[in-house]
Amino acid sequence: MTALDLSLDVVDLAAAVCDVPSVSGDEVRLADLLETALRRLPHLEVERDGDAVLARTRLDRPSRIVIAGHLDTVPIAGNVPTWREGSGDDEVLWGRGTVDMKSGVAVMASLAAELTAPRHDVTWVFYDNEEVDAALNGLGRIARNKPQWLAGDFAILGEPSNGSVEGGCNGTLRVEVRTRGTAAHSARAWLGVNAIHAAGEILSRLADYTPATHEVDGLAYRESLNAVRVSGGIANNVIPDSCTVTVNYRFAPSASVEQAEAHVREVFAGFDVVVTDAAGGARPGLDHPAAAAFVDAVLAATGREPTAKYGWTDVARFAELGIPAVNFGPGDPSLAHHDEERCPTAQIRSTRDALRAWLAT
Amino acid sequence: MTALDLSLDVVDLAAAVCDVPSVSGDEVRLADLLETALRRLPHLEVERDGDAVLARTRLDRPSRIVIAGHLDTVPIAGNVPTWREGSGDDEVLWGRGTVDMKSGVAVMASLAAELTAPRHDVTWVFYDNEEVDAALNGLGRIARNKPQWLAGDFAILGEPSNGSVEGGCNGTLRVEVRTRGTAAHSARAWLGVNAIHAAGEILSRLADYTPATHEVDGLAYRESLNAVRVSGGIANNVIPDSCTVTVNYRFAPSASVEQAEAHVREVFAGFDVVVTDAAGGARPGLDHPAAAAFVDAVLAATGREPTAKYGWTDVARFAELGIPAVNFGPGDPSLAHHDEERCPTAQIRSTRDALRAWLAT
Repeated sequence: MTALDLSLDVVDLAAAVCDVPSVSGDEVRLADLLETALRRLPHLEVERDGDAVLARTRLDRPSRIVIAGHLDTVPIAGNVPTWREGSGDDEVLWGRGTVDMKSGVAVMASLAAELTAPRHDVTWVFYDNEEVDAALNGLGRIARNKPQWLAGDFAILGEPSNGSVEGGCNGTLRVEVRTRGTAAHSARAWLGVNAIHAAGEILSRLADYTPATHEVDGLAYRESLNAVRVSGGIANNVIPDSCTVTVNYRFAPSASVEQAEAHVREVFAGFDVVVTDAAGGARPGLDHPAAAAFVDAVLAATGREPTAKYGWTDVARFAELGIPAVNFGPGDPSLAHHDEERCPTAQIRSTRDALRAWLAT
Repeated sequence: MTALDLSLDVVDLAAAVCDVPSVSGDEVRLADLLETALRRLPHLEVERDGDAVLARTRLDRPSRIVIAGHLDTVPIAGNVPTWREGSGDDEVLWGRGTVDMKSGVAVMASLAAELTAPRHDVTWVFYDNEEVDAALNGLGRIARNKPQWLAGDFAILGEPSNGSVEGGCNGTLRVEVRTRGTAAHSARAWLGVNAIHAAGEILSRLADYTPATHEVDGLAYRESLNAVRVSGGIANNVIPDSCTVTVNYRFAPSASVEQAEAHVREVFAGFDVVVTDAAGGARPGLDHPAAAAFVDAVLAATGREPTAKYGWTDVARFAELGIPAVNFGPGDPSLAHHDEERCPTAQIRSTRDALRAWLAT
């Protein structure tokens, strides 16, 4: 195979895309197959950037939509190639990438080929290294090196969203909450002060914390506050003089990073709190006319109302560029990265149908 | 220098012993210097075992005393060679090993040379690798390979005890107390169960725990129960599915290891508890006639009554061989391993005086 066959049925194309392994850092073969296929289409201008493939129409439409998705997956867990179970409306495509997010890539690639004259100009962005360090993220690289390829009035990210529109995303803040003590030999423990025992209060506050849900632009954002790591101790016979609880706060996009930090400092008042990572959320932006039209198209095709996105996704990168963005893709996000990753094929089709209905002239 | 000069004043000898670096695993030079000096003494039978040096009288006395001390130290912290501050009764010898336990080694070596015809037969044991893994311990190696060299009616370990008799030692038990949860992406935390939050209860029980003090053979053994390590967490964006708190219980020698384990399981009822290390304590054994006579000699020479030893020491190795044993050496044990390790020279002399008074004919 030298190129993907973009004329395949979209579910067959999704299986074909999943069957080319592309764990982060190893996307080159899939990118090659996709690039070759797209370059055969005369209505698209195509550009390659590392292992990202960019394609766009040049129809001088009054508005331009950016539709982006990543080619990489988390490591394979014996679930490539894909297989199918069930049939008809109950058919399910199993395997790595079926949710996160090669079914979405297949929808994008299929429509990129089919829609030779869409209602809006469209820029299709297939990028690399989404599942690894943010510094490696292909979309971030394109934003730095080829920002003109991301220019647009509205953006759709094909991340799994159960085939409905998930608007914006929560922000994320990571802090280290630390305790200090005094080291001593554990045989004479009363000469020391135990920093791990002192951290019990941090964990109690976490266990007692009730996370809020905030409504933003009509969507409900559910927050969470969790210890994700804890470490303390020097040796098996020493009273520990320090303990660190790493806490992750997922906060609604109505709050800024600064407000989120202030809240966490209030929760852990009396403790040493150090921020180690922070990324603001993105408001859903569903008041934009193009976004509203898109939501209507999805509602018509799938019967699904938009909901809030909880996880931080690359929509926040579009928010930073001033472009409203939503998540819209097939698959249940709670099955992303899961050994039992799988996607109802009806969702792949309904996602394709909604996008097609909105974009077709 | 080819041999230590054992005829030196005992404080000068202590400084000379400290000034030969002998961090664990690097005791060979000090062992050589000591062996050469001891082999020049016709009243002693001398044997070398690795970097341990063994010497004994063969006077056919009705009882035999084993007096043991280790040659190695923890790593040097810019505190070798030694130096002295103050003078007369306030003089202090500073430097690595002055407490743990080369001042004790000097007392032993000095008396080994001086007492050509002691009241009891004496076996002097200078051994290696006490400060590292128990598997490397020189006294343990001798117990396995040359048990006849440890035979005796009563044993004294020259570990620092502030120049008073510290009887027996506490036992030590190490357990891992574990919690389990369910992993989930931290953006959708409500799909998981946080194992670190669940560990808060373990830390609360530790913080609320009041350790007991038990009287054993007339001495008061103070116990302690402490977290020495805590670890949990998979990644910064995953709800942790496990957390482990490593707990060290130091228990009085009136309890067996089994009883200590049962107590810890009761404290952490409802949690998964796994024992990872255990060593029984040693009763002080001060009811033995030789021990009682020794305690009287120390009281006469120093005015000090015997007390309980808290830390686990190699006296427990003698307890395992069925030999009652006490700790008796110069230096404050809370300064052992300390960067400011230092010993009053008057304690070196009083320790020597008490042993000499008891052993001299």
